[in-house]
Amino acid sequence: MIERLIKQIQEKDAPIVVGLDPKLSMIPKSILNKSFEEYGETPEGAADAILKFNKAIVDAVYDLVPAVKPQIAMYEQFGIPGLIAFKDTVDYCKGKGLIVIGDIKRGDIGSTSESYAVAHLGKIKVGSKEYEPFAEDFATVNPYLGTDGVKPFVDVCKKEDKGIFVLVKTSNPSSGEFQDRLIDGEPLYCHVADKVNEWGADSMAGEYSNIGAVVGATYPEMGRVLRERMPHVYILVPGYGAQGGTGKDLKPFFNKDGLGAIINSSRGIIAAYQNEKYIKYGEENFAEASRAAVMDMKEDIKNG
Amino acid sequence: MIERLIKQIQEKDAPIVVGLDPKLSMIPKSILNKSFEEYGETPEGAADAILKFNKAIVDAVYDLVPAVKPQIAMYEQFGIPGLIAFKDTVDYCKGKGLIVIGDIKRGDIGSTSESYAVAHLGKIKVGSKEYEPFAEDFATVNPYLGTDGVKPFVDVCKKEDKGIFVLVKTSNPSSGEFQDRLIDGEPLYCHVADKVNEWGADSMAGEYSNIGAVVGATYPEMGRVLRERMPHVYILVPGYGAQGGTGKDLKPFFNKDGLGAIINSSRGIIAAYQNEKYIKYGEENFAEASRAAVMDMKEDIKNG
Repeated sequence: MIERLIKQIQEKDAPIVVGLDPKLSMIPKSILNKSFEEYGETPEGAADAILKFNKAIVDAVYDLVPAVKPQIAMYEQFGIPGLIAFKDTVDYCKGKGLIVIGDIKRGDIGSTSESYAVAHLGKIKVGSKEYEPFAEDFATVNPYLGTDGVKPFVDVCKKEDKGIFVLVKTSNPSSGEFQDRLIDGEPLYCHVADKVNEWGADSMAGEYSNIGAVVGATYPEMGRVLRERMPHVYILVPGYGAQGGTGKDLKPFFNKDGLGAIINSSRGIIAAYQNEKYIKYGEENFAEASRAAVMDMKEDIKNG
Repeated sequence: MIERLIKQIQEKDAPIVVGLDPKLSMIPKSILNKSFEEYGETPEGAADAILKFNKAIVDAVYDLVPAVKPQIAMYEQFGIPGLIAFKDTVDYCKGKGLIVIGDIKRGDIGSTSESYAVAHLGKIKVGSKEYEPFAEDFATVNPYLGTDGVKPFVDVCKKEDKGIFVLVKTSNPSSGEFQDRLIDGEPLYCHVADKVNEWGADSMAGEYSNIGAVVGATYPEMGRVLRERMPHVYILVPGYGAQGGTGKDLKPFFNKDGLGAIINSSRGIIAAYQNEKYIKYGEENFAEASRAAVMDMKEDIKNG
């Protein structure tokens, strides 16, 4: 799967993933009101509006980017209708040829992680039949439980040619509380990075492994260290844009081959029309504003 | 919410939570076949069987135990129908007066954790209306992202009188890979424990906080250390039974007041009829076997 991602990054010349993390406050009134008219002010109405909003943005950017990253929490908060919208979003994006990174940050003891891996990347057996529950291409995974919590994801990835990105150094302000603490003279995130190398060693597909890492754009110095420490690991980089990361912060995340990192932007793209810079597009042209934001992000990364 | 849990533990004289983590292989053929006849060998059929199985077990044990802990991964693996069965299970258990601990192990950056907290413990606003998406009473939370990943859960707990259990030392074999590593001379799990104290200090309800911790029964020595280190923190203890923890391993998890811990058993109770010890009940009396297993567990903890 990492080869497919790299191929699409190269073809579209954009190491960019669009974070589909919609909030109701980002959705134009015209869409929201129509959904509320049809379903009432209900979770079903919210889910309908979210799906319509996502589809319009995907239609406007799918030729520019290789991948999208729906954050499942934004859907889960609307209960079952929200999760149906998540699933429909995954399917719609795959139908447009996009690679889908499910930002699910799951992780549990072995037998339970196996169920999560099956849910998001694998197939579930029911009697004599098999089904793909959510069918993302990649998923994000939390490493706190150690190898037996991550290994079931690695195994499903091998079986189904899928991939994961393991949280190594997250983009949030308090990520350092545990992740930066020194163990044998090195921060915890370095020890997690070493494990990611180990977990992914047997999952190579070309120059890179199907087992990747998450490192926040908000910590470029650590990005440099981690880039060197995990030479064959693709890095998913959140935190660009709304969280504070800029184009010049991104250089350290890439290898000399120009590969090795894919940068996520969520709010900065999907809610671009609410940003002063793109306000001229107006609410009705929100999707075109998103397209302009992707093109600007592409430039920003190139010039960074 | 912790006061409600303690009251029920005392009334039922059982610091026991039943883990509702069904696998299809645990479900009696009679139930499974009936669901498959109605829905086919589909996720809907699996979900129907799971819900019927859960209800029968809950009917057989609800007068004996204060709480249940459905593991959401076991439902999520069947996609949307599975998650509907999760929600229906939560509702059914609450209808029987049981406290529901959603074993969800979520955790993300601040704004995203807020959505998870709303999804599982809070209310979501849609237009002028509010809804409770999954409506558990407690949820389990992963601490790897630090304070800003946990705080939104704490805030929702305060607002809605709910609670969480933060992963401190998990029950799985490789939990030590990161959790046991020494930082300033003490294992990471001790540093996480200190944060749990801090996060919960402002959420006291009587002697205990609504912010609890998860510590595995498989590590009784660490349980002793963590019990002392978090005197006002309730400990959810997984790993008893099928994972290897025994009655005598549990003593260190309790305070002198006999409170402070609640022990989970999943497979050992819900699949009791498949265990040599309860095989005399037969498949058709699976729920009675579960009831016998709960009563035996109660004794085992008392004599431990």
